[in-house]
Amino acid sequence: REDLASLHEQHPGIQPVLAIVQAGEDDALLEINKKMAVKVGLNVMQICLPSEFTEDELVEELLRLNGDPGVHGVFLHLPPSSLSSRVLNSIQPEKDVDGRSDVNVGRLVCGGLTAGFTPPAASAVVEFLARHDTCLEGKTVLMIGWEGPLGVALQCLMQKNGMLVLNSQWSSANLQNQADVAVLVGDAHRGLPPMWLKSGATVINCGPVLKPACGPLCLSPFRWEVSADIYVVSNQNVVRSSSLWVRQQQYLPWKLRTLKLQPLSPVPSDIEISRSQTPKAIDQLAQEIGLLPEELEAYGRTKAKVRLSLLDRLKEQPDGKYVLVAGITPTPLGEGKSTVTIGLVQALSAHLKLNSVACLRQPSQGPTFGVKGGAAGGGYAQVIPMEEFNLHLTGDIHAITAANNLVAAAIDARILHESTQSDKALYNRLVPSVNGMRRFSPIQLARLHRLGISKSDPGALTPEEAKTFVRLDLDPEKVTWQRVIDTNDRFLRKITVGQANTEKGHSRQTQFDIAVASEIMAILALSDGLADMKQRLGRMVVGSSRSGQPVTADDLGVTGALAVLMKDAIKPTLMQTLEGTPVFVHAGPFANIAHGNSSVLADKLALKLVGEDGYVVTEAGFGADIGMEKFFNIKCRASGLKPNVVVLVATVRALKMHGGGPNVSAGAPLPKEYIMENLKLVADGCSNLKKQIQIAHLFGVPVVVALNVFQTDTQAEIDLVCRIAEKTGATAAVPCHHWSRGGRGSVDLAHAVKEAARQKNNFQFLYDLQMPIHEKIRTIAQKVYGAEDIDLSPEAQAKIEYYTQQGYNTLPICMAKTHLSLSHMPEKKGVPTGFVLPIRDVRASIGAGFIYPLVGSMSTMPGLPTRPCFYDIDLDPVTEEITGLF
Amino acid sequence: REDLASLHEQHPGIQPVLAIVQAGEDDALLEINKKMAVKVGLNVMQICLPSEFTEDELVEELLRLNGDPGVHGVFLHLPPSSLSSRVLNSIQPEKDVDGRSDVNVGRLVCGGLTAGFTPPAASAVVEFLARHDTCLEGKTVLMIGWEGPLGVALQCLMQKNGMLVLNSQWSSANLQNQADVAVLVGDAHRGLPPMWLKSGATVINCGPVLKPACGPLCLSPFRWEVSADIYVVSNQNVVRSSSLWVRQQQYLPWKLRTLKLQPLSPVPSDIEISRSQTPKAIDQLAQEIGLLPEELEAYGRTKAKVRLSLLDRLKEQPDGKYVLVAGITPTPLGEGKSTVTIGLVQALSAHLKLNSVACLRQPSQGPTFGVKGGAAGGGYAQVIPMEEFNLHLTGDIHAITAANNLVAAAIDARILHESTQSDKALYNRLVPSVNGMRRFSPIQLARLHRLGISKSDPGALTPEEAKTFVRLDLDPEKVTWQRVIDTNDRFLRKITVGQANTEKGHSRQTQFDIAVASEIMAILALSDGLADMKQRLGRMVVGSSRSGQPVTADDLGVTGALAVLMKDAIKPTLMQTLEGTPVFVHAGPFANIAHGNSSVLADKLALKLVGEDGYVVTEAGFGADIGMEKFFNIKCRASGLKPNVVVLVATVRALKMHGGGPNVSAGAPLPKEYIMENLKLVADGCSNLKKQIQIAHLFGVPVVVALNVFQTDTQAEIDLVCRIAEKTGATAAVPCHHWSRGGRGSVDLAHAVKEAARQKNNFQFLYDLQMPIHEKIRTIAQKVYGAEDIDLSPEAQAKIEYYTQQGYNTLPICMAKTHLSLSHMPEKKGVPTGFVLPIRDVRASIGAGFIYPLVGSMSTMPGLPTRPCFYDIDLDPVTEEITGLF
Repeated sequence: REDLASLHEQHPGIQPVLAIVQAGEDDALLEINKKMAVKVGLNVMQICLPSEFTEDELVEELLRLNGDPGVHGVFLHLPPSSLSSRVLNSIQPEKDVDGRSDVNVGRLVCGGLTAGFTPPAASAVVEFLARHDTCLEGKTVLMIGWEGPLGVALQCLMQKNGMLVLNSQWSSANLQNQADVAVLVGDAHRGLPPMWLKSGATVINCGPVLKPACGPLCLSPFRWEVSADIYVVSNQNVVRSSSLWVRQQQYLPWKLRTLKLQPLSPVPSDIEISRSQTPKAIDQLAQEIGLLPEELEAYGRTKAKVRLSLLDRLKEQPDGKYVLVAGITPTPLGEGKSTVTIGLVQALSAHLKLNSVACLRQPSQGPTFGVKGGAAGGGYAQVIPMEEFNLHLTGDIHAITAANNLVAAAIDARILHESTQSDKALYNRLVPSVNGMRRFSPIQLARLHRLGISKSDPGALTPEEAKTFVRLDLDPEKVTWQRVIDTNDRFLRKITVGQANTEKGHSRQTQFDIAVASEIMAILALSDGLADMKQRLGRMVVGSSRSGQPVTADDLGVTGALAVLMKDAIKPTLMQTLEGTPVFVHAGPFANIAHGNSSVLADKLALKLVGEDGYVVTEAGFGADIGMEKFFNIKCRASGLKPNVVVLVATVRALKMHGGGPNVSAGAPLPKEYIMENLKLVADGCSNLKKQIQIAHLFGVPVVVALNVFQTDTQAEIDLVCRIAEKTGATAAVPCHHWSRGGRGSVDLAHAVKEAARQKNNFQFLYDLQMPIHEKIRTIAQKVYGAEDIDLSPEAQAKIEYYTQQGYNTLPICMAKTHLSLSHMPEKKGVPTGFVLPIRDVRASIGAGFIYPLVGSMSTMPGLPTRPCFYDIDLDPVTEEITGLF
Repeated sequence: REDLASLHEQHPGIQPVLAIVQAGEDDALLEINKKMAVKVGLNVMQICLPSEFTEDELVEELLRLNGDPGVHGVFLHLPPSSLSSRVLNSIQPEKDVDGRSDVNVGRLVCGGLTAGFTPPAASAVVEFLARHDTCLEGKTVLMIGWEGPLGVALQCLMQKNGMLVLNSQWSSANLQNQADVAVLVGDAHRGLPPMWLKSGATVINCGPVLKPACGPLCLSPFRWEVSADIYVVSNQNVVRSSSLWVRQQQYLPWKLRTLKLQPLSPVPSDIEISRSQTPKAIDQLAQEIGLLPEELEAYGRTKAKVRLSLLDRLKEQPDGKYVLVAGITPTPLGEGKSTVTIGLVQALSAHLKLNSVACLRQPSQGPTFGVKGGAAGGGYAQVIPMEEFNLHLTGDIHAITAANNLVAAAIDARILHESTQSDKALYNRLVPSVNGMRRFSPIQLARLHRLGISKSDPGALTPEEAKTFVRLDLDPEKVTWQRVIDTNDRFLRKITVGQANTEKGHSRQTQFDIAVASEIMAILALSDGLADMKQRLGRMVVGSSRSGQPVTADDLGVTGALAVLMKDAIKPTLMQTLEGTPVFVHAGPFANIAHGNSSVLADKLALKLVGEDGYVVTEAGFGADIGMEKFFNIKCRASGLKPNVVVLVATVRALKMHGGGPNVSAGAPLPKEYIMENLKLVADGCSNLKKQIQIAHLFGVPVVVALNVFQTDTQAEIDLVCRIAEKTGATAAVPCHHWSRGGRGSVDLAHAVKEAARQKNNFQFLYDLQMPIHEKIRTIAQKVYGAEDIDLSPEAQAKIEYYTQQGYNTLPICMAKTHLSLSHMPEKKGVPTGFVLPIRDVRASIGAGFIYPLVGSMSTMPGLPTRPCFYDIDLDPVTEEITGLF
């Protein structure tokens, strides 16, 4: 009772529950158990099987109780004949408070007294003896009627106390006057010759209370009934089970089984490195980081979705430190943000032994077969298996494709149906009579509500109301929703649809985007739960009516179906790094027309999982001016999370290009500037690094510069970059070697991040949402990009007015700008100045919740080159080994 | 040794392997083990950890050995200090031949002597005593130096033999001259006072051989060394482990935990029934049906992919009975083939307790949101959870979509690149110089080989050869490959692609099909392994060159990438029925332009899993004239499997429509003919049933008619159908009630199928592949459809000539005909006669391996109606309950 009270005090949310399984509704005997449980403050859940239950039914019930995180102990109040080995072993050992499963008995006899549960009857007897006898050591005990697990447990406990146990199977003349204690169950004592007992021996009865005058044993003056004690121990076990459960929920340094790396030189190809490491079974990793089996949904051996219920279970847990990896302005030479992200968590988890999780974006599958290849990191800092990461993963992008295209199909079909039917016909079809009954579906009632029609009887609408209800009146010219596909298919960039006869001439020009450009991807990344996602999906604007009103997914009646299609996609996917440390992969929205950051939910789950002293490292797309700015202003605003540190990634090569180094072209040898020492170029190029550090400081967050070292970099070059970075105010600047050495190569970075996370930071948003749209745009252009001003086209101006009038003006801004320069001119490296940022057009993703101004034109559908990657990709049908992915 | 020899004799394929894990390369002590193992014929796998290994490394190795089906026992030859509880419990209990894990010790002490392994040292001591002593009962044993699991096990074994065990923890004066036997480990005997032993006591040493003159014990005349015996028992355990393994592979009636059904009346909606049943965890079901954990890849809690390695493991196992469910010609009233399939396995597995598996097609996701709804069966004969079945499942259709569209993107991109580049530029891009080296990729070498160019040095090709190599010269007008999407999107039925400026005017008209219409789906369904699938993918013809040569996926260089995309899709998905019996879901090709049957691989896996006395029930699309004919002539030809029974599904209502009953329309009340008794219509309609029975008999397979009973059917109507069916030669005709009652309602059908499967059958194909294409078509038209003849259009004639010339003439025929009539005229019900079947065109799926003549036009893209199903589909964001699916 005291234990429970103290448990309660520390964790008011915890309510230990003992499930008692019984046959039939009779509960006479059960009352004692319940009373006792109530006395100490336990909750009892009573489960009544049919009187004539089968073993299958019992096992089914036990499996259900195993999976119920609200149940902390299971007690079987059933006839002994039904307690088969299968039944006893069906109870999860952690809930087997009766301690009768093979595992618990095994743990007990092997010495693991703390790991498992001891059968209450056995504990009660020993406790009782210890209470009444000064010394147990050397005493002889006669056990009668104890069989199976119970007997073994009691014998084991007594022997641990130094007693000699004689059990009734053994009948020898030697026993004359030997036993100091006799322990009985039920009426098994009947055959016991009294002369076996020493005079004055203690007799303990553990069964139901004995009738008086029941035979020779009644002669003994020391006869004790311990049934009440058994209930006490039984309840103690439930409280212990709950305490263990609570301890599981709390922050603890993980006991990660890390995978050893033995880096080779030269570094082999990414797929070779990935293939040479055997990943841990994902359920193993999940267990190591404190996930419960019921919170995991495995997808094969190396990937698993994590249920959002985790957030609720760990809601009292303080968050870990939140680290963002961003980069300098990208160049064709590559900076390696992903490898830094992965190398950093490898260092933190596997080498510094700090709980840490990397949160990554899921890459589009299309480019894997085109030019770009995969996105699972590289060298000895990768997510494995990299082919799983880069291909279907757990189907989230496929789900987005399906949801996106269902909306598209619904739009065109609706336009067609509205154009070919009268109001009345449309109404009859949309609200049909089923078995003589007409009813609005809930989503139709919601539309009526939005239209201000407060009627729920389909017969009651006026013809005018019915017309308003049935006609979305979508203007085909103003449909903004596009179809998507996860393939680099350039021929779908502009297409004409509806050319078959069945579509009666309703053809129109439209386009396919790559799947990750779907607004649904941005929604997935920004949602903080199923309800929020569903609302956002319903709010998506797909176009406008001929009268200029926005038409939403809700108006199309498709929201519920979208939520159903996306119900699994909302759960983040757990994978691992090359060193066996955890990684979440979830969502991968475009970094220009959307915000380019992985999901809010994965970050939130990870921050709870790592606990107070842990680290979550997440990555922003493109350079810090784009990805980081959106991370702060859009993602952190949506999540309410505050970042602790920014890691800014740079390479000597890329800085040289920013400093005026020559262009490079694929296939051609690298110009000598990039291979030989050139401090001038490095120093000049650091202007970009300095600017990006300053941008991070605008938001009040400390910066650590991670310099991704190449073999050709000289020490002088490396030192120069670090010196400049630290002079600019970076907390630290650290050369990193994870690509060639794994986590060990980034231990210095990990230490620097740990140090920086200790600093106070004054995180703040760059702009207030209440500012007018154009002011928000101007703020970003001037403060982040360094533009003199912005120049709004008439079209952009008109859109801003329209969105303001529709009430969308308090949304944050998501700039669609080239990532190749701080300005709008891709060729301007370093830190361009003196430019005015042209805003060509302004669009809106209302469901995702941002306005996106277009600076220049953005391609949302990559193409295939003459020789796409797929020429080298192959699968050995015998070994199932994959080659050619990178 | 004898055990092993007899195991070998019965199962020559089995080679028991003992894995010995040691530290460092030193193998002096190991030699004994190895010698002993070799003596009895065991194979030994020696695993050398680094001398300074970590616990993590050891555990990692143990997990690997657990997962290796070729290892039957694991022995740790390591210092005792490294044998932590974590280590001992990391070994799978089934391979823990040393019997030291908690579970094995628990099993032993709880009485499960047969379930687990006893530590060899303990067994050896007891066996030794039993061999040298007539009676163990009543003897006193002193155990010295025995601690942990070993001590517990020995004590337990001795007690089971009626001995009294004193262990050294207990030191009492009582012991004087008591012990008959002393059992020692190592040099633990040093502290033993000799007076504890009776004179002439036996002393057994289980440790390394003692030095002579080592103390008082040497005085005893009976001193035995049992180390050799320990090795013997150890090896016996490995042999036992192997035998258990072998037994697992063999046919055994499953111990299925079935789920109880409590059917309600009236029958609730499908999703309500599905939701009200809690499915078993899929790994549980897998274990029940004899799958090994390493053969399973879970996808969430209720679905799992099954690895094809199963086929190899069970290759010696005889197949079960193979049952096909087909239907009469479909009507809008529905026949219920899927519910019969599922009801039948529910009856066979859950009620007749016969191993059985249903093999179902995966439905397209598009129609789930359109008009048709799902395809998981209905009422109390369903696959659960039905929403998982109907939506993404395990992503196979998404994989097909990705693979199909990668081919499409590659085609258009290639046409564009060829049109804008010189031969030389193309060659330089296709065979680029990487780090100064030029090399053909393997798939390019294969193309060179097909072109008859036997050169492998890219520099050696003549300009003419290079031109032939780089130019596929695809005729845009003759591209037959279409894009696909798994959405009912009617506006994609005819489209123009390539209208963006970047595609430089290369626009062309094309179309999207629904994803399941992809040839890749047909390939998935017909492949018998990864290698076969890859070859078929490479053979796919995507169009023809301007000179009329077929261009294949291999020519595009994309085969390897397709195989990579499809590597998981090739594994069938395991689910369960409402009664917890197993179901495979795999592949769902169109039933007109393709063959409409689930996969060969799922059927093959299932036939092995159910074993000799089990049943596999698979379903063919459309009516028997189409689905069954293709099942026999295409699928069985590809698989080499022979069907045992055809179950032909009919309903009284549908037969009435074939007998001339009025048309029905959705929403309108059912005409009274279908609700009231009308024996005339039934009798007339049975013509269709008779014809379909006769078609099955053409192939020499017995037929059981399953009459799916509706509440409005009268007994006279039911009797009439059964009478006619049996008169026509059906082995039996049985009314079924699974829809309202689950498996219990189809027990009669199950008995009838069991009976029919016992009959001899003379399965034969309808036509020989060597017949000319038009003869094969005519055979099907006349013998199956009852046509007078066929009428080939000139286009069809030309195609046949072309295919013959290309060598495709030995492929089977896959008729693309309406399913609504035996003829080509959908409105002709019953058994139309006197018609000539018009063949409009002939096409070919070379990868899948069939020619498909077009009889009329086939829609390959469904549309959305004015009010699609999605209006009613919803997801409760709190409970995650789905509504509105059916």
